[in-house]
Amino acid sequence: MNLLLVGELEPAERSDWAAALRLALPEHSLYLDRGEVADASLDVAIVANPPPGSLSDLPGLRLIQSLWAGVDRLLGDPTLPVGVPLARMVDPAMNSAMAETALWATLALQRGFFEYARHQRASRWQVHGQRRADELPVLVLGFGQMGRAVAARLAQQGYPVSAWRRGAADAANVELVAGVRVLSGAPALADALAQTRILINLLPLTPDTRSLIDADLLALLPHGAGLVNLARGAHLVEADLLMALASGQIGHAVLDVFQVEPLPVDHAFWLHPQVTVLPHAAAMTDARSAAAVVARNIEALAAGLPLQHLVERDAGY
Amino acid sequence: MNLLLVGELEPAERSDWAAALRLALPEHSLYLDRGEVADASLDVAIVANPPPGSLSDLPGLRLIQSLWAGVDRLLGDPTLPVGVPLARMVDPAMNSAMAETALWATLALQRGFFEYARHQRASRWQVHGQRRADELPVLVLGFGQMGRAVAARLAQQGYPVSAWRRGAADAANVELVAGVRVLSGAPALADALAQTRILINLLPLTPDTRSLIDADLLALLPHGAGLVNLARGAHLVEADLLMALASGQIGHAVLDVFQVEPLPVDHAFWLHPQVTVLPHAAAMTDARSAAAVVARNIEALAAGLPLQHLVERDAGY
Repeated sequence: MNLLLVGELEPAERSDWAAALRLALPEHSLYLDRGEVADASLDVAIVANPPPGSLSDLPGLRLIQSLWAGVDRLLGDPTLPVGVPLARMVDPAMNSAMAETALWATLALQRGFFEYARHQRASRWQVHGQRRADELPVLVLGFGQMGRAVAARLAQQGYPVSAWRRGAADAANVELVAGVRVLSGAPALADALAQTRILINLLPLTPDTRSLIDADLLALLPHGAGLVNLARGAHLVEADLLMALASGQIGHAVLDVFQVEPLPVDHAFWLHPQVTVLPHAAAMTDARSAAAVVARNIEALAAGLPLQHLVERDAGY
Repeated sequence: MNLLLVGELEPAERSDWAAALRLALPEHSLYLDRGEVADASLDVAIVANPPPGSLSDLPGLRLIQSLWAGVDRLLGDPTLPVGVPLARMVDPAMNSAMAETALWATLALQRGFFEYARHQRASRWQVHGQRRADELPVLVLGFGQMGRAVAARLAQQGYPVSAWRRGAADAANVELVAGVRVLSGAPALADALAQTRILINLLPLTPDTRSLIDADLLALLPHGAGLVNLARGAHLVEADLLMALASGQIGHAVLDVFQVEPLPVDHAFWLHPQVTVLPHAAAMTDARSAAAVVARNIEALAAGLPLQHLVERDAGY
């Protein structure tokens, strides 16, 4: 089959991906430039934030395979071909990286390591109390591949972990995770927030979850709770978080994603003592393991077998 | 029995310990001041860095029970009564706290979170590569209660973990930990260091381990390795570490303990960009669980049963 790699990638990244994909798909032809191949002969678009319009007029397209887990930008392109299956990336190495970042942030919030880092910059030796993991209930928003990986890793460390998913409709199909209490619906969320010391966001970005983390939601947490946003900047109303940090309602926030990325150099988060900024690096797709995931889907397409990790466009993820 | 609590404790700490000990030992009498009770009638000294000389002239003393895990300062007191059993603290909550600190430091070194913290202070958005846990061999120096807890926790996260203990004599008695390769002796240490990306010190401080982490040892690590010292400041030659950081031989160090504590305000570590300073807070004894450990030993003494966690004074731990 003819495959096209298209998207916003640095030159070095593009060659890494091309090499990994060619290694994983030796019997297929991978093109890096649409001009190299007849539009009608392209079977699969392998995409990483493709510029809007770049997938139109490809009459032979049978699969759009994203290299990224989040497909909100892709679905926002009105020229995205209707009727072509769209698959998101579910990369085990990426899930593991996300679990590591969430665990690191949770350990730091539990044990006050961010506070010690502030003290270090003031050459200040001051010991504070030590909280046990079992004293710190964690709530994970989102229970997809990444939410599950994070919830499982934290439960394994002794934190009391709950996970919340918006919809309850297909609750019977939810894969359970040992030690994790799974909740759904708005009333359950309000109750759970009141018991939560650390809130970790891993929701998909959809019209229903946009701006979900606002002043009203933050006010439901106990005073001084920690916030970890690893999903999308648009889930969080940044001005509301700044207010909650100022009042002490939120004690510390770890943010990997922002309304505008890269985070503008004059943004209040950069030098805020209660905010830890990561440059959208909580979990990167690993080209080696992700290429194998792409290859499985393309071989399935070639063999007429069911495709994996298809996006429900109406749901938005 | 008559128990005396003696040591360097803040007033609030002293009352916390007294309350926890009285709750755990309701049938015994706990004194906080040696003047309140006849010297000859004291059976047990419960100690937390007691001032030198404070345990002399107690003819009825049958047990010295430390509230702290490290007993190097206690053994350095020449007036410490000879022939009275000395027990160190082995607190499951403290072992778990130590494992949390080691895991937090290891995750931060693996994923470059200390570097992102430096970038944040410069309002700099710059993503770096992502290393997998299985690519980062960790060597734990020391395989006592805390070394074992740390090695087990890291192995569980997917790091290739080795642990080194100085002596091989009683190797047959070493309790094994799943996924951890246990080494002993100097030649094995040199070989293991060459394969290590993150070195974590949890040795007891004895004449044999003092200044073990010096320029010669650091030079055996691969260039850019991480160092985590959670044991005692005197294990590390601080000037040698500063040289190794300057040359890039050590990429980053996380230090909880120092030659002089509190760390002097003008010490180079405080503002060093490649050093993370913690105020000897990696793992604190938890009064609730430690009081239960003390109570078990005191009830064993009262009943004539064997005592737990006795220090071998010649070995120094």
